Parts: sequence; structure tokens; C-alpha cells
Amino acid sequence: MDIKIDPIQMHLLEEVSGLHEIPAGAYNIRANGKGIARNSSANIDIIPKDNGTGIDIKIKPGTKHESVHIPVVLSEAGLTEVVYNDFYIGEGADVTIVAGCGIHNGGKKNSQHDGIHRFYIGENARVRYVEKHYGSGEGTGERIMNPQTIVEIGKNGYMEMDTAQIKGVDSTKRLTKAKLAEGATFTVMERLMTHGKQYAESEFEVDLDGDDSGAHIVSRSVAKDSSSQIFISKIHGNAKCSGHSECDAIIVGDAKISAIPEITADCSDASLIHEAAIGKIAGEQIIKLMTLGLTEEEAEEQIINGFLK
Amino acid sequence: MDIKIDPIQMHLLEEVSGLHEIPAGAYNIRANGKGIARNSSANIDIIPKDNGTGIDIKIKPGTKHESVHIPVVLSEAGLTEVVYNDFYIGEGADVTIVAGCGIHNGGKKNSQHDGIHRFYIGENARVRYVEKHYGSGEGTGERIMNPQTIVEIGKNGYMEMDTAQIKGVDSTKRLTKAKLAEGATFTVMERLMTHGKQYAESEFEVDLDGDDSGAHIVSRSVAKDSSSQIFISKIHGNAKCSGHSECDAIIVGDAKISAIPEITADCSDASLIHEAAIGKIAGEQIIKLMTLGLTEEEAEEQIINGFLK
Repeated sequence: MDIKIDPIQMHLLEEVSGLHEIPAGAYNIRANGKGIARNSSANIDIIPKDNGTGIDIKIKPGTKHESVHIPVVLSEAGLTEVVYNDFYIGEGADVTIVAGCGIHNGGKKNSQHDGIHRFYIGENARVRYVEKHYGSGEGTGERIMNPQTIVEIGKNGYMEMDTAQIKGVDSTKRLTKAKLAEGATFTVMERLMTHGKQYAESEFEVDLDGDDSGAHIVSRSVAKDSSSQIFISKIHGNAKCSGHSECDAIIVGDAKISAIPEITADCSDASLIHEAAIGKIAGEQIIKLMTLGLTEEEAEEQIINGFLK
Repeated sequence: MDIKIDPIQMHLLEEVSGLHEIPAGAYNIRANGKGIARNSSANIDIIPKDNGTGIDIKIKPGTKHESVHIPVVLSEAGLTEVVYNDFYIGEGADVTIVAGCGIHNGGKKNSQHDGIHRFYIGENARVRYVEKHYGSGEGTGERIMNPQTIVEIGKNGYMEMDTAQIKGVDSTKRLTKAKLAEGATFTVMERLMTHGKQYAESEFEVDLDGDDSGAHIVSRSVAKDSSSQIFISKIHGNAKCSGHSECDAIIVGDAKISAIPEITADCSDASLIHEAAIGKIAGEQIIKLMTLGLTEEEAEEQIINGFLK
């Protein structure tokens, strides 16, 4: 397949999906509002929706060790799009899905991508979902991303979500919702970094509906300069289940961070825990690294990199 | 002074304030909507408000090791009252204030006491505030208490609040608000127990406005039967401060518990932590006590008593 992709788009693709070339397996690459490359595999069908609002990804039961890449890049200023992608993961499948969005804005108008991803995960299926968000460009227009991840996990199913907002996203409202059946597991590792005047809001809503279901949400964030962040998580224990949410945030400069977690037990066999901590980097940590020869800025950067892994 | 008090009122008084006789020091005893006994001391003035809505308690600067008792009892069904008590604690004072409300309802109508307590704590003053709530009586009318504690703590001031809802309160909405100046400290130990169809809501709102101010809020609660509880706490770090809130809750039977804590850092030098855990008593703990000869119910009761101290 002949794909037209310019150097800026290629850089965005690398940042959000680690892709240097066309990936193996199934993929769909969307650039400036249009699908520019698509590949289905024997077990994974990628089908554009009839109404043009996104794609359906259908993964056959039992599909093992395959991957789907669906990166989105926007390099044209002023583009605004809402995309609906639906994933149907068959029973017993075990797959990796790599999504991500990169926006380069060199203009005055805002660029915005709202990706709504819905996952229907079959019994005993396992999904590793990796999502990265990245912005670049010297334009005054904002780079806006509002990802939604809506998940239903069937009996004994498993989803692991690894999501990162690396840098350059001016405004984001992230919503992640999950409903878990018996024995299902949902784990999330979120990493967020904001700087300048950026704003980030991340909300999780998890319903532990089935016995022996479990959720484990970890959010790590760094807010620099005069950026602001809000973390909201709601875990509802409606059965014999376990839920854990943890929000650790580092403030640098004049940034503001708020954490509002909620745990609700509607069943006496629910076991729910939340932890949150907000603070700046401990002075001793910085001094320790400075005695090893780093400047204060380098020490701070090294600690932050370690924190966000 | 000659005080008319019946055995039911005496029992309520004992439960909420540990009083078996008229206390030493300053006191004001309110029964069925009226002040029935009052005593000021050399350093502590208790003055009824002109409009009859409550009392002003004025504690002279430097007053040390004195106490104020202001229990309230309601033994008449169908009484509803809102009382405003204001405490002015002079600089450098060190006092203990014991409040508390006991309602005995033997009738069909609801009995309700809403006590709004405002504290103005001077520089370097220390206050230990003890508050107990208790209900009794076989009537179908509800026993309702909505206490509010509104606190302003001056420079290097200190307040320790020990609040307990022992049993028998059908519905409660508790609100505790505190504003802390430089170097001020606010610590809270809340213990709540609900049973039957009782409802309890407890909300904390703390503004850490001054450098080196600190708040430490611990809430322990047990919800039995089909009772329900909501715990809300909001800690705002607006300066170089430290804030910690902790909510531990045990569910027994069909009870429901929700914890919604919020920590917000508006200053990069704020250090805020929240922890919450909801669950039932671990099976092993019960079994361990049962091997020592206790029945399951006795084991459960012993664990709960230990948890609520």
C-alpha cells in the first residue's frame, strides 16, 4: 500500500505509537481526519463504520499474541474531530491494542481530537491497551484531546490500560468508564504531565458488578508552571470485589492539583481502598542528586522522569 | 442552684457528657429547649444571647486547665430546635470544652437538635473539644441531630476535636469547617456507629491558609444492618502546610458506605494526603477470637469496640 505521510506526521506517529514503519498485524492510521492506511489480518477485522464516524475492530475468539495499531495524527491547524472506535474482543483472545493521538499545531486555530473508544471484552479474554497523547508545534492554537475509554469486561476477562499524556497537550478531559462482570479485572496506569497553562482533568468510573471482580487504578501526575489538574475517581463495589485507587501528584512551580476520589460500597463484601498524595519533591531528594553533580533543574527532571517512569 | 432533672434526662446527661453530678467549672445545661442550669467562673463567662438562640462562651486570655460543659438533652417527643453557641477563646488559653446531645424519644413525632458551634480561637490558645451524640427511647419518632462545628484558629492556635455518635441517632448531617492561620493545628477524631435504617453524613471542609498550618482528620465508622453513611472531606492547601485525612469504615450486614475525600493544593508547598478504606471485618480476625471461646457475634462486637475504641 502506498502511504503519503510527511515528516511532521511521521514524528507524531513515532511519539504516540513508537512506529517507525508500517506495523505488523492489523492497523488503521488516521491523519488529518481521514484514514490513510488500513490493514486487517486473518483474525482481526477493521471495518469503517457506515456513517463514517470511526471504525469497528473485531477480534476473533481465541486470537493470541496479535496486535492492533490505530494511531491518529493531526498536523493541520484548526481541525476538530470526534471519532468513535469500537473494539469487540472475542472469548479467550489475548491481544495488544496501541492507540494514541499526536497533534501538531502550527497555526492560530485550535486543533481537537475527541476519541471515544468502546471495548466489549469477551469471557476469559485479555487486552493490553496502550494509549499515548502528545502535542507539538509553535502555533498559538490550542492542542485539545478528550479521550473516552468505555469498557465492559466479561466473565474472567482482563484489561490492562497504560495511558500517558507525555507533553504538549493544552487541554484534556479524559473519561474512563468500566463495568466488570464476575472474576473480571481492570488495571490502569495513568501518567500525566502538564506545563505552561495547560489543563488536564481525568475521571474514572468503575462498577465492580461481579463477584471476585477487581480494579486497580494508579495515576501519577506532574503539574508544572501554572498548569492545573483535577483527578476524579469513582469506584462502586456492588459485589464481593476489591477496588483500589491511588493518585500521586507532584507540584512544581505555581501549579494546582486537586484529587477527588470516591469509593462506595453497596455490598458488605466489597473491599475498597483509596490513597492520594499531593506535594512537591522533597528537598532532600534534590540535594542528594546535587551532591552527585547535577544542577537543581537536572535533579528535578531526573526525579520527575523516574516518577513517571 | 436547684435543678429539676428526671431520671431519663440524667441518663442522657451521663451518656453524652459523663456527668453524674453538676460539674466543676463553667457549665450550661439545656433540657427540652430551655437552659436549666448555668454557671460562669472567674475566667469563663457564659452569656445567653439576647435573641434567645443560644449562648456566648467567653474565655479570658491565659485561662489554663479549666473546663466548660454544655450538654443538651431532649426527652420530650416532637421537639425541634436550632441552637447557636459561640466560643471566644482568648490568647494563650488552654481549656477543655465538653458538648454533647442526648435525645430520648418515646413518641411518634421526630425530635431534632441542630447545634451550630462556632469557635474563635486566639493566638497560641489550645482547645480540647469533646462532643458526643446519643439517642434512646422506643418511640417511632426519629432522633435527629445536625451538628455544625465552625472553627477559626489564630496564629499557632490548636484545636483537638473528639467527636462520637455512639448509638441511637436516626439521622445526622454533620458539618465541620475550619480555617487555620499561620502555625495553627486542627486534629479530629470522629467515631460513628449506625444501625437499623439510620443515615449519617459527615462533611469536613478545612482551609489551610497559613504557613506551617496542619490538619489531621481521622474518621472511623461502623455501619450495621441496612444503615448508610457518607463521608466527605475537603482539604484545601493554600500555603506551606500539611493536611492528612483518613477514613476507615467497617460494613456489617447490608449497610452502605461512601467516602468522597478531596484534597486540593493551591500552593506548591502544600503537602496533602488522603487515605480511605471500606470493608468488612476480616474472617481470620473473627475466627481467631472464636478459637478463644467467643461466639461469632461476640467476636464481631469485640473487634468493633476495639476499632471505635
